[in-house]
Amino acid sequence: MRAVVFDGQLRFTDAWQLRAGKPGEVAVDVIKAGICETDMQLCQGYMGFSGVLGHEFVGIARSGKFAGQRVVGEINCACEACELCRRQLGNHCPNRTVVGILLHDGAFAESVWIPEVNLHRVPDSLSTEAAVFVEPVAAACRIPQQIPDIHGQSVIVLGDGRLGNLCAQVLVYHGCNVTVVGKHPEKLRLLSNRGVATVLLQDFSPTRSADVVVDCTGSASGLETALRAVRPCGTIVLKTTVAATQNIHMAPFVIDEIRLIGSRCGPFADAIQLLTEGAVDVGPLLSATYPIHDAIKAFEHATRKDTLKVLLDV
Amino acid sequence: MRAVVFDGQLRFTDAWQLRAGKPGEVAVDVIKAGICETDMQLCQGYMGFSGVLGHEFVGIARSGKFAGQRVVGEINCACEACELCRRQLGNHCPNRTVVGILLHDGAFAESVWIPEVNLHRVPDSLSTEAAVFVEPVAAACRIPQQIPDIHGQSVIVLGDGRLGNLCAQVLVYHGCNVTVVGKHPEKLRLLSNRGVATVLLQDFSPTRSADVVVDCTGSASGLETALRAVRPCGTIVLKTTVAATQNIHMAPFVIDEIRLIGSRCGPFADAIQLLTEGAVDVGPLLSATYPIHDAIKAFEHATRKDTLKVLLDV
Repeated sequence: MRAVVFDGQLRFTDAWQLRAGKPGEVAVDVIKAGICETDMQLCQGYMGFSGVLGHEFVGIARSGKFAGQRVVGEINCACEACELCRRQLGNHCPNRTVVGILLHDGAFAESVWIPEVNLHRVPDSLSTEAAVFVEPVAAACRIPQQIPDIHGQSVIVLGDGRLGNLCAQVLVYHGCNVTVVGKHPEKLRLLSNRGVATVLLQDFSPTRSADVVVDCTGSASGLETALRAVRPCGTIVLKTTVAATQNIHMAPFVIDEIRLIGSRCGPFADAIQLLTEGAVDVGPLLSATYPIHDAIKAFEHATRKDTLKVLLDV
Repeated sequence: MRAVVFDGQLRFTDAWQLRAGKPGEVAVDVIKAGICETDMQLCQGYMGFSGVLGHEFVGIARSGKFAGQRVVGEINCACEACELCRRQLGNHCPNRTVVGILLHDGAFAESVWIPEVNLHRVPDSLSTEAAVFVEPVAAACRIPQQIPDIHGQSVIVLGDGRLGNLCAQVLVYHGCNVTVVGKHPEKLRLLSNRGVATVLLQDFSPTRSADVVVDCTGSASGLETALRAVRPCGTIVLKTTVAATQNIHMAPFVIDEIRLIGSRCGPFADAIQLLTEGAVDVGPLLSATYPIHDAIKAFEHATRKDTLKVLLDV
């Protein structure tokens, strides 16, 4: 079948062999998939991944309770048997595979195997283009899940890329007073068009007054900026994964009793609801769509500074 | 009056002039005071402090609602007017002074001025020796205040010094399953004598399984050990203030969704209750008591590795 593979180099092939399914898995025939920052990092050697890339997708389930219907799939495939799985922390199962990221062929292919328990039906009223965003919107929905009392709080989102944009929209929906700080006027405009306050980084003067600061910068400097923006006893949400070590002054965390929360994958059901209601608008984030055989071009497009989201048509 | 002063060097004087009181302050005639790790750091130049040291103390209030009674005093003297004070975050008031630490003469003296709102009466059944520990026990009581659902959780306390000991006792009281990891067999024995599980650091094999890890090591390596001991979605409480910057790999915080909470001063009322009930036993922590004119000797004693707490008789 056609597939986009990374095995030391990124390549398209039309002769990839779909592996056999495992118990509990359902084959999903992929319709559309999204290229994520993580995919670019995997191509730089992150996680030592080798295989079919892709973890943001919409497809048609071939069998099971959603047979013939459009589905999206959670990416953490847990063992369902270990201590963490028993504690409902399957996203952190030490034995897990992760679709398109860790020991599990991904969705930049005609078909992908996904545990049936990971699948969610896409409502008829939600377009396939928008449903590709369920995975990153769910990651944004992880924040109110981790901070249940976030309603009414002042939140600064650092970063105006895809994830910053989605976090801002989700937090506005959750009743936060959101300001997005970014480097790109045209990306900030997408948010101000929706009534979200925005500030260019060069004009931003942190005043240690925000209840919550969400770091979506993708850069080591994000945490330093967050520490200057958050109030005493406030919360910094780290969405950014920085591979390198960072030189950090930890004393302010103690003196100002700052709380830091690492935040990763989130609830698909919430994301599907917000997208279906139109509370999160992903239309303006769509930069381009390429046929899967043009995946190399699509990846090149995705790496450009002004790009938000590039999709693949399978 | 007699006082222990740091003004570039530590010295005892019997000719210190008590400053004038400010509105809302009450003069407290000090009976006993405790030497804290912070006092030693202040003598190294921390906070650029100059004046009378001492922030752990018991005294007799000269006036006000506690006139003639034994009192202890919270150390953060807030402005009661700013945004943070209005939000009940006076411990973080940007205009605050801190007794014996920041722009406020401390309690290693015959008398100290304390805002009346900071004073708590010492119950008759609580000895003066034990009441000197109210401030550090309150710092330990800050942890269950910051983690209200800590009951029943598995907690590893890193560090077997004064603060580690007190945190362990407080967390046992709060129904936690506590293990203390330390370097000093004789200090660990104080805890195992009270039924607390202990492990020598050299025998400790972290398994990323603790719900909560409390870093009381006073060392930059504590955070690294904590990261290897805490489970995914678990919490690290930072009690340790490390002045220098540290080289830290932040990605595990995101990938494992670790929560880090800086923790400083805590509720005096809770500490007084635990000490009065005997839920926290500070007797074995008392290493020695010196008359105030022997303060230099007392400080030397306090810096020794095997010392837990040294008191001054005023």
